[in-house]
Amino acid sequence: MTRMSDDRLGELYAGTLRLVADLGFDNVTMDQIAEATKSSKATLYRQWGSKLALFVESLANGAPVPEVAPDTGSLRGDLREMFARREKDIEQPPELVGATLQAMKQNAELAEAVRARIIGPVNDRIDLFVRRAIDRGEVASDCPAIPYIHLVLLAPYVLNEGLTGLEYDPDFVLAYIDGLVLPALGIH
Amino acid sequence: MTRMSDDRLGELYAGTLRLVADLGFDNVTMDQIAEATKSSKATLYRQWGSKLALFVESLANGAPVPEVAPDTGSLRGDLREMFARREKDIEQPPELVGATLQAMKQNAELAEAVRARIIGPVNDRIDLFVRRAIDRGEVASDCPAIPYIHLVLLAPYVLNEGLTGLEYDPDFVLAYIDGLVLPALGIH
Repeated sequence: MTRMSDDRLGELYAGTLRLVADLGFDNVTMDQIAEATKSSKATLYRQWGSKLALFVESLANGAPVPEVAPDTGSLRGDLREMFARREKDIEQPPELVGATLQAMKQNAELAEAVRARIIGPVNDRIDLFVRRAIDRGEVASDCPAIPYIHLVLLAPYVLNEGLTGLEYDPDFVLAYIDGLVLPALGIH
Repeated sequence: MTRMSDDRLGELYAGTLRLVADLGFDNVTMDQIAEATKSSKATLYRQWGSKLALFVESLANGAPVPEVAPDTGSLRGDLREMFARREKDIEQPPELVGATLQAMKQNAELAEAVRARIIGPVNDRIDLFVRRAIDRGEVASDCPAIPYIHLVLLAPYVLNEGLTGLEYDPDFVLAYIDGLVLPALGIH
């Protein structure tokens, strides 16, 4: 695989996400992605192999799963580190979530890839944080909110803009973690 | 406006939602809706005026806002009544949420109509329940989770299936209300 600079990769990923957000995954062609990102279709296929793989890597590039899990000593600190980081690294068009959900429904292979490459690792990271919090005695091991923590931490990304019409605000998720997520887990 | 039976209306709404879920709002034509629901395009236009209005009414028909707000004497009871009711009345294709979010992004008039006709009334109803709970002393008026209650109550409908791949389970929302929503509001 040819080495590309991180900046160049970032441009390619951003261009791919923009096109999928605008046109839908099924409708976008590799020709359009090549044109929009000033690359060649041959390069895109050599590097990623398929439109599906390029799209999933583009999404994964923005997912909040750095290779080393932060260990800040508290669940609040770990979650803030994870979700604040996310804001810095990605620029995702607001239409992207709807387009991705839609594409996942229509394309089982894509759905599987998004779950394996993005949602699974995010959930694993959240599970690690919750286990640590239980070990520290911050959260009761039988706390009834635990099964819903994945859902609740994904919710603001998907729902806030799409259904409420609110502009995305990077501080929103941090306020939401403090105001709702931690209290639900018994941390006040 | 011609009177249709509730059963007939239900068939028309279900057929409309099915087609939008399958093809996307933009791609569906009134001809297709007429054919799929064994009605005539003239009837559809006479009754609803536009594809947008027909789609929004189809969605609204499944929204959990009965005309009389239940008053069960507890927030738990009110929420269970509201969200359990929803399960009984509607049959919504799982692709519908993604298709709706996508269409709302691409069509500002549709987004406005969905917010005014569906999301607004649902949120108003939830606000009423929370105000009652504060008046009863169940929830503190300055509880930090209150601003996020709309988001959190919509989340399982949008997220559970789309992002986790779990099959929708009607008991899920009720367990989620007990396990996460009420504890976040300080009700245990």
